[in-house]
Amino acid sequence: MNSNSGSARPTQFNLVRVNGTWTRQTEQCQVEQGKVSDAKIYENKSEDGVSWTVVSPTVFTYRVIQCNDILDPRNDTLLWGHLGDEALRGTSSNSTPVKRFVVMDETVHQLYGSRVAQYFESRQAVHRILPLPTTEENKSMELVSRILEEVHEFGIDRRSEPIIAIGGGVCLDVVGLAASLYRRRTPYIRVPTTLLAYVDASVGAKTGVNFAGGKNKLGSYVPPVATFLDRSFFQTLPIRQISNGLAEMLKMALMKHRGLFQLLEAEGRNMLHGKMQSCTTGSGPKVEDSSTASIRIAIETMLEELAPNLWEDDLDRLVDFGHLISPELEMRVLPELLHGEAVNIDMSFMVYLAHQKGLLTADEKDRIVRCMLGLGLPVWHQDCTLALIQKSLGQRLEHSAGSLRMPLPTGLGSAEIFHDMIEDCFLCQAYQKWTDELSSSGTK
Amino acid sequence: MNSNSGSARPTQFNLVRVNGTWTRQTEQCQVEQGKVSDAKIYENKSEDGVSWTVVSPTVFTYRVIQCNDILDPRNDTLLWGHLGDEALRGTSSNSTPVKRFVVMDETVHQLYGSRVAQYFESRQAVHRILPLPTTEENKSMELVSRILEEVHEFGIDRRSEPIIAIGGGVCLDVVGLAASLYRRRTPYIRVPTTLLAYVDASVGAKTGVNFAGGKNKLGSYVPPVATFLDRSFFQTLPIRQISNGLAEMLKMALMKHRGLFQLLEAEGRNMLHGKMQSCTTGSGPKVEDSSTASIRIAIETMLEELAPNLWEDDLDRLVDFGHLISPELEMRVLPELLHGEAVNIDMSFMVYLAHQKGLLTADEKDRIVRCMLGLGLPVWHQDCTLALIQKSLGQRLEHSAGSLRMPLPTGLGSAEIFHDMIEDCFLCQAYQKWTDELSSSGTK
Ligand SMILES: NC(=O)c1ccc[n+]([C@@H]2O[C@H](COP(=O)([O-])OP(=O)(O)OC[C@H]3O[C@@H](n4cnc5c(N)ncnc54)[C@H](O)[C@@H]3O)[C@@H](O)[C@H]2O)c1
Ligand SMILES: NC(=O)c1ccc[n+]([C@@H]2O[C@H](COP(=O)([O-])OP(=O)(O)OC[C@H]3O[C@@H](n4cnc5c(N)ncnc54)[C@H](O)[C@@H]3O)[C@@H](O)[C@H]2O)c1
Repeated sequence: MNSNSGSARPTQFNLVRVNGTWTRQTEQCQVEQGKVSDAKIYENKSEDGVSWTVVSPTVFTYRVIQCNDILDPRNDTLLWGHLGDEALRGTSSNSTPVKRFVVMDETVHQLYGSRVAQYFESRQAVHRILPLPTTEENKSMELVSRILEEVHEFGIDRRSEPIIAIGGGVCLDVVGLAASLYRRRTPYIRVPTTLLAYVDASVGAKTGVNFAGGKNKLGSYVPPVATFLDRSFFQTLPIRQISNGLAEMLKMALMKHRGLFQLLEAEGRNMLHGKMQSCTTGSGPKVEDSSTASIRIAIETMLEELAPNLWEDDLDRLVDFGHLISPELEMRVLPELLHGEAVNIDMSFMVYLAHQKGLLTADEKDRIVRCMLGLGLPVWHQDCTLALIQKSLGQRLEHSAGSLRMPLPTGLGSAEIFHDMIEDCFLCQAYQKWTDELSSSGTK
Repeated sequence: MNSNSGSARPTQFNLVRVNGTWTRQTEQCQVEQGKVSDAKIYENKSEDGVSWTVVSPTVFTYRVIQCNDILDPRNDTLLWGHLGDEALRGTSSNSTPVKRFVVMDETVHQLYGSRVAQYFESRQAVHRILPLPTTEENKSMELVSRILEEVHEFGIDRRSEPIIAIGGGVCLDVVGLAASLYRRRTPYIRVPTTLLAYVDASVGAKTGVNFAGGKNKLGSYVPPVATFLDRSFFQTLPIRQISNGLAEMLKMALMKHRGLFQLLEAEGRNMLHGKMQSCTTGSGPKVEDSSTASIRIAIETMLEELAPNLWEDDLDRLVDFGHLISPELEMRVLPELLHGEAVNIDMSFMVYLAHQKGLLTADEKDRIVRCMLGLGLPVWHQDCTLALIQKSLGQRLEHSAGSLRMPLPTGLGSAEIFHDMIEDCFLCQAYQKWTDELSSSGTK
């Protein structure tokens, strides 16, 4: 009667495919040869019946591809870049017409819509471009439904005709969720047009919409088949949107890459005002410029942290740095602050806390703050009160299986995850110092 | 400019965690020791920039547990059965009150609602029971939203407080989708109360709702943390609902288990009228009765086929038997036919086709049809016309990457998957014979 009853050792079964039929086989008794699955079934018999435990790995594969001139009709990437080279050859020789459904952020559509249309026209692809007001306020299931209805009406092949999203993080998140729901999973492609989406929303598996007043309360973990990264879109971004993305890059620098920190420290201001465009010109042996290098390192470090933990089963995540206090702060001050700005205020406080705990020297702390200011990011905010910080950390403790799991820098480009709640006096002292030193810094 | 450019050999990186930080390491150059991830990153440099391919396995684990008297307050299963024995002990000693959100099919709620409420009350669990009209007509995103709003208002811990679904396949599918969306994944538990849901909807990862006139057009592949199987719910099911579930059991028998076929052939009629209840009584060495054995084998064979292919990446699926023509037929005749009935009509035709192709003898074909009739299942339907069959197979060919992938029995309890389109004359002849022999069989 108790679910504990009959807890003899379970029998482990491997799964082997023989002539198209899967069969269970124990280690000891391998009847026939065949393809072996990575999945396992454990069986336990008790007087109440049998119980089985299924352990089944599903492999997610996706490409993140840097490219230039993605909207140039001579460039294959937008149509075929999601396929491996071999698959590519197979499909190109196929005679059925190519079909693509494209969702674009409305502002991005105003700027690039005609070039996107020209691209597909000149490639003779059957296409439908759907511009949508993908703003944070509209980031909801209603937008997802809207996309689903249009996709359904247009009609796509669930296997071979990926849905393409072109826009900022909101657009990519909403389209990703729609695609992951349609027929339980339809491939989709992300083309980020903001720096934030480029270095963050584009490299992982998360999709989402807001719900009941909560950010990204609904969503899925289904990666795109591919992400195409073209920096030229940033040319039309306001400077503030560049700063916004630089905050997430700085996060990766502080957590795990001293070299990236040094680049941002030395060249951040120039990169910001050059809108992260590459400045190598002419011929000769190519040297990687600072923007190119920073962006590459930001993505490499992000992929390193996300790839082993696509479904976020592991709660110890360095990428959560800057994201412990900021959600609460965003709730309070949206739309005044952009996401990266709120993240930076969170990181700025955490740097003071790390200093208070003896993890960072005063000099390191000051260098980080100067770097933040150079990137055009706010380092303090009046609404980020001690009470708000305490509340945020308290909630974190609750939702994180009883451990704080707080990443803190332990130097310039290294970090550790701390599990115990921070003593109130530490928080207090750090907060006091943070406010004393930075409250007059303005937001820039 | 071509996405093929620069296709030098990619560099393979393993991911190794050192002091909480993930680092990339090539095979040749293993810098530090640490936990190695199963995920890999492949990097390719070209003149357009870098491209990365991420290959990341995510492991899904779930339990399928047979039990008796799940609503008996002395039984731990409903509260704790989803946890392993060790985790169980940890939680039981924890002092925070237990909280559970429960969704029940309205009819099931009328029959069992008060016992479910009593269960949670006597266990002093904070709970909310939400009865919903989870019918096929209501199986939509609206129901999912309804559940999400109520869950959100009630408030649950995303890690440790699974949502419980008690009902037929519709209820389990809808709740599964809601749970898989809430905070990108909230654990849920399935308690099937129909035979169909018990042997089919409960053992895999699929969730879903209908959309734009299409069955299960939206959904996800997220398994429950656990499924609790208690046959006593069947006592209140109409006989026709038992037949409905037997069709899916017969499917597994025909595809891969001669022993199960023999049980259904010999004892099917009795099992049907005994509503699949166990009939072993008293003491003495227990012999497994036919209902118990059939149900166990049905689940074992189903798990074998589903576990290695949770996300249905592999299109060659024996479990698709009976599901090639039936969707089109269901669209046409719903609600007249139940799902299992439509599946059986599909299987019955396929048996004739297999006979026509020389895969089954006349005797085998006749035994199968007699068995179907014994299970109370229709074996022919006037709306299942030759045109409908041809249309269905044509669509299958289109949606299945150019191959028919049609499972057909090749004996009693063995099958193969056929890839080429069936010649029209074969279809015609099989259809003619099927109609000649079975059109007068009535629906029983
Ligand atoms: N899925 C993830 O892993 C992930 C990671 C980080 C952030 N996000 C999400 O991303 C969102 C934030 O993304 P965002 O910062 O890109 O915001 P956003 O999508 O709202 O875009 C910001 C603004 O820039 C405009 N815009 C976009 N591209 C432009 C261009 N090339 N030129 C001119 N204007 C342009 C947009 O119209 C919008 O007004 C948040 O909703 C966040 O939750 C998701
Ligand atoms: N996820 C999967 O893998 C999967 C597999 C098979 C079927 N399904 C889905 O399951 C659905 C069909 O499931 P179903 O046949 O259980 O239908 P259902 O959920 O509609 O239930 C059938 C009827 O039985 C009633 N009922 C349920 N339990 C009862 C009980 N114990 N006593 C009396 N009445 C009871 C219900 O109120 C309903 O009227 C379909 O929507 C199908 O798509 C899903």
